[in-house]
Amino acid sequence: MSAQVAIVMGSQSDWPTMQCAADVLDALGVAYDARIVSAHRTPDRLHAYGKTAHEEGFKVVIAGAGGAAHLPGMIAALTHLPVLGVPVRSKALSGLDSLLSIVQMPAGIPVGTLAIGEAGATNAGLMAAGILALGDEALAQRLQDWRAAQTDKVAERPED
Amino acid sequence: MSAQVAIVMGSQSDWPTMQCAADVLDALGVAYDARIVSAHRTPDRLHAYGKTAHEEGFKVVIAGAGGAAHLPGMIAALTHLPVLGVPVRSKALSGLDSLLSIVQMPAGIPVGTLAIGEAGATNAGLMAAGILALGDEALAQRLQDWRAAQTDKVAERPED
Amino acid sequence: MSAQVAIVMGSQSDWPTMQCAADVLDALGVAYDARIVSAHRTPDRLHAYGKTAHEEGFKVVIAGAGGAAHLPGMIAALTHLPVLGVPVRSKALSGLDSLLSIVQMPAGIPVGTLAIGEAGATNAGLMAAGILALGDEALAQRLQDWRAAQTDKVAERPED
Amino acid sequence: MSAQVAIVMGSQSDWPTMQCAADVLDALGVAYDARIVSAHRTPDRLHAYGKTAHEEGFKVVIAGAGGAAHLPGMIAALTHLPVLGVPVRSKALSGLDSLLSIVQMPAGIPVGTLAIGEAGATNAGLMAAGILALGDEALAQRLQDWRAAQTDKVAERPED
Amino acid sequence: MSAQVAIVMGSQSDWPTMQCAADVLDALGVAYDARIVSAHRTPDRLHAYGKTAHEEGFKVVIAGAGGAAHLPGMIAALTHLPVLGVPVRSKALSGLDSLLSIVQMPAGIPVGTLAIGEAGATNAGLMAAGILALGDEALAQRLQDWRAAQTDKVAERPED
Amino acid sequence: MSAQVAIVMGSQSDWPTMQCAADVLDALGVAYDARIVSAHRTPDRLHAYGKTAHEEGFKVVIAGAGGAAHLPGMIAALTHLPVLGVPVRSKALSGLDSLLSIVQMPAGIPVGTLAIGEAGATNAGLMAAGILALGDEALAQRLQDWRAAQTDKVAERPED
Amino acid sequence: MSAQVAIVMGSQSDWPTMQCAADVLDALGVAYDARIVSAHRTPDRLHAYGKTAHEEGFKVVIAGAGGAAHLPGMIAALTHLPVLGVPVRSKALSGLDSLLSIVQMPAGIPVGTLAIGEAGATNAGLMAAGILALGDEALAQRLQDWRAAQTDKVAERPED
Amino acid sequence: MSAQVAIVMGSQSDWPTMQCAADVLDALGVAYDARIVSAHRTPDRLHAYGKTAHEEGFKVVIAGAGGAAHLPGMIAALTHLPVLGVPVRSKALSGLDSLLSIVQMPAGIPVGTLAIGEAGATNAGLMAAGILALGDEALAQRLQDWRAAQTDKVAERPED
Repeated sequence: MSAQVAIVMGSQSDWPTMQCAADVLDALGVAYDARIVSAHRTPDRLHAYGKTAHEEGFKVVIAGAGGAAHLPGMIAALTHLPVLGVPVRSKALSGLDSLLSIVQMPAGIPVGTLAIGEAGATNAGLMAAGILALGDEALAQRLQDWRAAQTDKVAERPED
Repeated sequence: MSAQVAIVMGSQSDWPTMQCAADVLDALGVAYDARIVSAHRTPDRLHAYGKTAHEEGFKVVIAGAGGAAHLPGMIAALTHLPVLGVPVRSKALSGLDSLLSIVQMPAGIPVGTLAIGEAGATNAGLMAAGILALGDEALAQRLQDWRAAQTDKVAERPED
Repeated sequence: MSAQVAIVMGSQSDWPTMQCAADVLDALGVAYDARIVSAHRTPDRLHAYGKTAHEEGFKVVIAGAGGAAHLPGMIAALTHLPVLGVPVRSKALSGLDSLLSIVQMPAGIPVGTLAIGEAGATNAGLMAAGILALGDEALAQRLQDWRAAQTDKVAERPED
Repeated sequence: MSAQVAIVMGSQSDWPTMQCAADVLDALGVAYDARIVSAHRTPDRLHAYGKTAHEEGFKVVIAGAGGAAHLPGMIAALTHLPVLGVPVRSKALSGLDSLLSIVQMPAGIPVGTLAIGEAGATNAGLMAAGILALGDEALAQRLQDWRAAQTDKVAERPED
Repeated sequence: MSAQVAIVMGSQSDWPTMQCAADVLDALGVAYDARIVSAHRTPDRLHAYGKTAHEEGFKVVIAGAGGAAHLPGMIAALTHLPVLGVPVRSKALSGLDSLLSIVQMPAGIPVGTLAIGEAGATNAGLMAAGILALGDEALAQRLQDWRAAQTDKVAERPED
Repeated sequence: MSAQVAIVMGSQSDWPTMQCAADVLDALGVAYDARIVSAHRTPDRLHAYGKTAHEEGFKVVIAGAGGAAHLPGMIAALTHLPVLGVPVRSKALSGLDSLLSIVQMPAGIPVGTLAIGEAGATNAGLMAAGILALGDEALAQRLQDWRAAQTDKVAERPED
Repeated sequence: MSAQVAIVMGSQSDWPTMQCAADVLDALGVAYDARIVSAHRTPDRLHAYGKTAHEEGFKVVIAGAGGAAHLPGMIAALTHLPVLGVPVRSKALSGLDSLLSIVQMPAGIPVGTLAIGEAGATNAGLMAAGILALGDEALAQRLQDWRAAQTDKVAERPED
Repeated sequence: MSAQVAIVMGSQSDWPTMQCAADVLDALGVAYDARIVSAHRTPDRLHAYGKTAHEEGFKVVIAGAGGAAHLPGMIAALTHLPVLGVPVRSKALSGLDSLLSIVQMPAGIPVGTLAIGEAGATNAGLMAAGILALGDEALAQRLQDWRAAQTDKVAERPED
């Protein structure tokens, strides 16, 4: 099955965060393709990648970056596919810079932004699955099962 | 045509912001239904609304709220449909509280968050359209036309 | 003696913080019941819990959560009992997101919010006791004794 | 009927905010007494006020102040009555300074803090009423009626 | 004389800010070319512009944008010319988002960032002139004269 | 020699920070008295201490506290002696709460505030010495010598 | 009588703020001298001013500036007189930048920092008077009278 | 070859950060001179250094400092050479104070500011090289080679 979700990240160091997106897509049986595309160090790769993402058969792009995080917004400028952004925690400002750089897009080019860090990456995977599930009943069922299992795992009482 | 996009907001005062989502959906020919659902003042309405959103035929929910903005996250907890969150500007903190209340969701329940204020609402409409366009070629074409027109409108040089 | 104070938290990971509320209630001889109620992963449990809290005989609810912390505000939307909120420290933003998500409630649904982290949880327990003490002279006396002891423990001079 | 709720504020300029607490208490039929007690300009008045608040028959204290807002915490240090804090919007920092000065109390002395500004003052009034309602069934009924009316006032759809 | 400084901005609405850069370059006799290049709405124009900036004979690029301000960093990714960034004030967050989006560039691609708003634009013009003055003695003299005049204009005492 | 500088702090845990003030006063030969005065846990001690500080012969008060740091401002409300405030680093917000709680005093009651943490405590000691030096030529000389030695210790070049 | 307090500010635009310092010194009968000394536009004037401040007979320096506010710290580096800093409100960041630029001085060179804006300037004047009052009993009396009058002006109750 | 780039820093403790600027200049074959110049502890050295920087043959100054970081702006006030500022991470506020102290310069005296910490120092070195490369074709080539190598080093896919 060809990948429906593209996972892109600005550098190798973003992978421990972005792997959470990959993990949840694996759990839900959604094929993805993970690449490093640096908006700043590989702008040509970015341009080509954004321009051809829909031709590659991707339906949703998940883009993660930290600091002055331009990757999600620039991908969104280059494709009409839905783009989800993951702010990676940064060293000095803990990802507040990443968050504002991703979420504060001007009217016209949306990036659906998730939480800073691993939780955001997991949720980007879930949201991508939710988008694909609109046209894939089997996936919709798997997603509902995943969520039901998540609900079931919540204990009644805290344990010491 | 029945509405594919649900627009919900926490109070009447959010409408001037959220109307930007409605406007862009109108421009793209996407039917929507706009409601007031206050997470705090009408929690039963919230619960019922979230639980039945997919039965109503909605495919995407756009939820906007300000301050301690719980509506988007609570809708997302109650439905497996994709939920987009719009942080409405708040009086004291200019929407920074709204943004953090919406975007910082824990792993498991995603809210794709857009920018604070009108730009975010416009982009929520665009992103909803982009999600629907994955299964609607005519809409995909209209969305690409809309974006091409947006690009064409950018002047070469600033005018005094 | 049945529990007068409900302690609820969004996940098991909040317990090291929320246990400080339990500890001070233990010290003051106030019975409590501690539960995990995730606003996002168990929204039905939340709805049922909030709706029936007063029938269970609780007088005060202490709710703690981190990040986009919706639990305290949603409980407050569902019950007319006094609700105290504890912002749990979060990974990226150290609880600033938790604080704003809890304290910035709109007019109509109050959450009495305490400090971020353990100090806030301890103080939620003390405040719950203070509220109950308005109708319980013995507890009022124990609370005053607790505070007097706290005062007595403050040394005159710092020690190296 | 003697006042059960004390409303104190740091200066005359806080009254437009704090009046929202008075208004909701009026609406709920709860007697209150409103005073100016400046922690900084009238420290003796503060000390006396805090020390005697419970002898005056008050059950709950609502304290509002802006900037380096020390009034709520200092009242809480001087009385074992429940103290609710209202951060008043400040000129330069919009009340973020007020909020942190009030909410970040150390373990041992709680202040139940509400939102910045008018919404916070309204909610302080509501929370005071909720606390008193624990021992006053008639008030509990009025509070539930007030909340039901609030719920009923939420329109179904936004109006242009 | 062909333009040595390129002034680019994300939208027409940035011009009132960026004009301050143009004004000071005019005052110093430095030729410039001002264009609108939207990173998000005209990504192809951005790519072409960045790639060819040095062929056009520009020596320095001044780039201004607001919100999720990606223009300066993306230009810097596409050219080896020095790039100066001007964070334009934004509606909700007053330019703090613009500043962090521009200044927090990862190692490898620098953007010399100036202050938020008009002061930053003026200073971008001055810094561009200072860079050019390293290879242009006449300009160096004009810049020193400009600065000397600025110093002379500082009054000794404040006037009522 | 009786102490001319009072060092007060909110709790024992502030001593590692405040000791920096003591150390520099020791180095400058200025006698001080260090006490724990908790604004919140020992409000009577605070009141008495502030009221009698000038009778004890103190000339300057250095007050350090963290979080909702009310000690410096409350001391300043109770004495007409110059009060210097030291914001102690706090657990969740790193002292930003301490800083705003101390520095944002309303017109009428000043607190001269130093930097967050140890540097601030050292500087509070130096500033107290500088104030006393206005009436003590020998101290003025020692302070100038201390500063000259500080200047001499700055190396010309960084060492690996 | 020669001026004992130097008031310096970075530009004419700081005068409406800094005049509050002058006003309270006038009210207390303390002679002052107000100058514009721009750290950035007149660095030589700054250097000379700081070096000779004590020779001019000044006892305390009040320095106000906004944005990247270097004036107070640089004066403090050049004189051993006590320096009080006033953060002037800035356009984009409301004085948060001014505050951090002034208060976060490294160990070794203190600046006693007051609140952002007019309140801070008034308090700088009061604190300067308090410092001078240590060696001037008549001034000490006038300062105590001023404070007593301030206390007396605080009304008992808020007025509509 | 005499040094074309001056690297100055406020203290020895800034060297681990600033060394990143030195390293990249070494890699590019640009001679530099690294000095400690404390704006606060050695104001005379600062004044002399800034005044004579261009006579020493420097073309660009890189200045790094933390906290109330006045060094870059003060150097910029004293020389007409281009000045690049590096905000060094600070203990309490992680360099947000350093950033605002450096970047928020008033109109008239620019400091081209880079990111907080090591990335900013590396980029200051790169930007200095880029400025010098305008008049040095061999360096321009080395810089382009460096950037091409950087691009080549970006892997296609993340590795576990």
